[in-house]
Amino acid sequence: MNSSAPSDLPTIADLWAAAERLAPVARRTPLLEHPGLSEALGGRLLVKAEALQRTGSFKFRGAYNRISQIPEADRKRGVVAFSSGNHAQGVAHAAALLGCPATIVMPADAPAIKIRNTQGYGAKVVTYDRLKENREAIGARIAAETGATLVKPYDDRGVMVGQGTVGLEIVQQCRELGLAPDQVLVPASGGGLIAGVSIAIKTFHPRADVIVAEPAGYDDHTQSIAAGRPVSINPGAPTLCDALMAASPGEITWAVNSRTLSSGVVVTDREVKAAIRRAFLDLKLVVEPGGAVGLAGILTGKVPAQGRTTVVVCSGGNIDPVLFAGILTETD
Amino acid sequence: MNSSAPSDLPTIADLWAAAERLAPVARRTPLLEHPGLSEALGGRLLVKAEALQRTGSFKFRGAYNRISQIPEADRKRGVVAFSSGNHAQGVAHAAALLGCPATIVMPADAPAIKIRNTQGYGAKVVTYDRLKENREAIGARIAAETGATLVKPYDDRGVMVGQGTVGLEIVQQCRELGLAPDQVLVPASGGGLIAGVSIAIKTFHPRADVIVAEPAGYDDHTQSIAAGRPVSINPGAPTLCDALMAASPGEITWAVNSRTLSSGVVVTDREVKAAIRRAFLDLKLVVEPGGAVGLAGILTGKVPAQGRTTVVVCSGGNIDPVLFAGILTETD
Repeated sequence: MNSSAPSDLPTIADLWAAAERLAPVARRTPLLEHPGLSEALGGRLLVKAEALQRTGSFKFRGAYNRISQIPEADRKRGVVAFSSGNHAQGVAHAAALLGCPATIVMPADAPAIKIRNTQGYGAKVVTYDRLKENREAIGARIAAETGATLVKPYDDRGVMVGQGTVGLEIVQQCRELGLAPDQVLVPASGGGLIAGVSIAIKTFHPRADVIVAEPAGYDDHTQSIAAGRPVSINPGAPTLCDALMAASPGEITWAVNSRTLSSGVVVTDREVKAAIRRAFLDLKLVVEPGGAVGLAGILTGKVPAQGRTTVVVCSGGNIDPVLFAGILTETD
Repeated sequence: MNSSAPSDLPTIADLWAAAERLAPVARRTPLLEHPGLSEALGGRLLVKAEALQRTGSFKFRGAYNRISQIPEADRKRGVVAFSSGNHAQGVAHAAALLGCPATIVMPADAPAIKIRNTQGYGAKVVTYDRLKENREAIGARIAAETGATLVKPYDDRGVMVGQGTVGLEIVQQCRELGLAPDQVLVPASGGGLIAGVSIAIKTFHPRADVIVAEPAGYDDHTQSIAAGRPVSINPGAPTLCDALMAASPGEITWAVNSRTLSSGVVVTDREVKAAIRRAFLDLKLVVEPGGAVGLAGILTGKVPAQGRTTVVVCSGGNIDPVLFAGILTETD
């Protein structure tokens, strides 16, 4: 972050404050290395195993940081969020820990396991018909009726800096290993995680490259970096990466990311599957497709690793067992 | 450990010394908790994720500690080990880190992936015909010809106390969480891991129960505890737990375990598979059958969890992808 950045952008101090709030509850996820992988790449590869975070993804960090800052009186009236995936579980669990009622608006045709998981964390799930109803309208109605606070998935300062504590841990863990990262690969949908992470990385390692990893068909950040302005993609392309289907960068996240990111890497479903198999075989880690795009970016060689120290964030591990089994037994 | 223990048994001081040797290389594996699992059990459940250790199992700790204590002159002549599994990989990788040549004697019909993994860590693999040749004789010949030191899988003081550093970390990590374990479940084959772990647990939590977990058909420790003397089982029963097929407790390990263990729990393949699925779904962790027997012991209710703080060691994650995929998609 240089001195010409707008004064209202989040700073490293905001990340430290979030880290303090999260310290008693969030897991400091390990930074894993498999010697054989590093050797094959010709450079050190370190994997930030955020799939091991509470609720199985980094989303818990942002949700908890955001909800913990809602004033006591408002918090009693609860929170509301739209999500069919990791954000739903993160908000549900964070709210429960903070004694705050949570309502999650999910499509009626969401996988039963995701609805059950969200309810399992203590949230009320309100379903809607994806074709006939508007989830924003439902959320607005719930907020108006109950006074609940909306917790956005990424385009929110509190969420973004909470997610950015992943970056602070990377800095600390690299230091403990006596290493300085040359490049950090982070998956992006709306860009909250990578924005937060990039603040930490660029503060302590200003010459390190922060590289956004995206699935083919959803490379809005990669295109935006190339264009120098936010670009939207046409949604609808098929992808295994259900967690990374935002069509454009968030506003607040792009204000950060436009200053901090070096480049993007775009990977196919096939490359993502190969990365999931590697994580299983070498790291003993369950990684979901959207969580594996950064790993795929480095394993394919699309991002050169030779002679560099690379950190890859594997951001989540919530994947259907039948899908995972299919990926493990594919041979291509 | 009480004061009447023979003076030549390993002590907590030996574990600390091993921990210092291992500090620069071994991973401090995380102690994971899934709130839903603890809630369902009615007690805190903490999983020591030793599958995330280098080489995918706790075996690395014992091998490294043992090999690092071989005098320099002898170490140059190398080490030799017999194993078709986790010990092979642990010895191979530890030896490579210590600049020591390693020869691993493996059956010619061992899974190709295990032979490749062991070679991948830099070891020379010597195969033998399981029906016609004797691996001890081959190992003895290699040792005689080369002057290499034999590294046993469990019945060795240096190996046992290295493996016991898992227990030291459990003690430290529980303290960081403000918890005291009431019971600790640990898988056993020859009993090296549980012997080392039990020294740490009984030193700091003398009233905690250390419970051995074994697969059906290989419950030699459970029977030995009941009989008050080492008991051998008839080998040959089919089991998914290929890592836990020792027929009797080790001599040195039993000298410790006979003093420290409270009881045993025996689980079936079906129960092991259910535990592997739970670890996948809730912990995002790949656990091999032998590594999951402790988790199975608590999830089945065979070891009561209600109102207690339970630590379970998941000791390894080296499992064939096709087998893992089959376990994930089974529904019973």
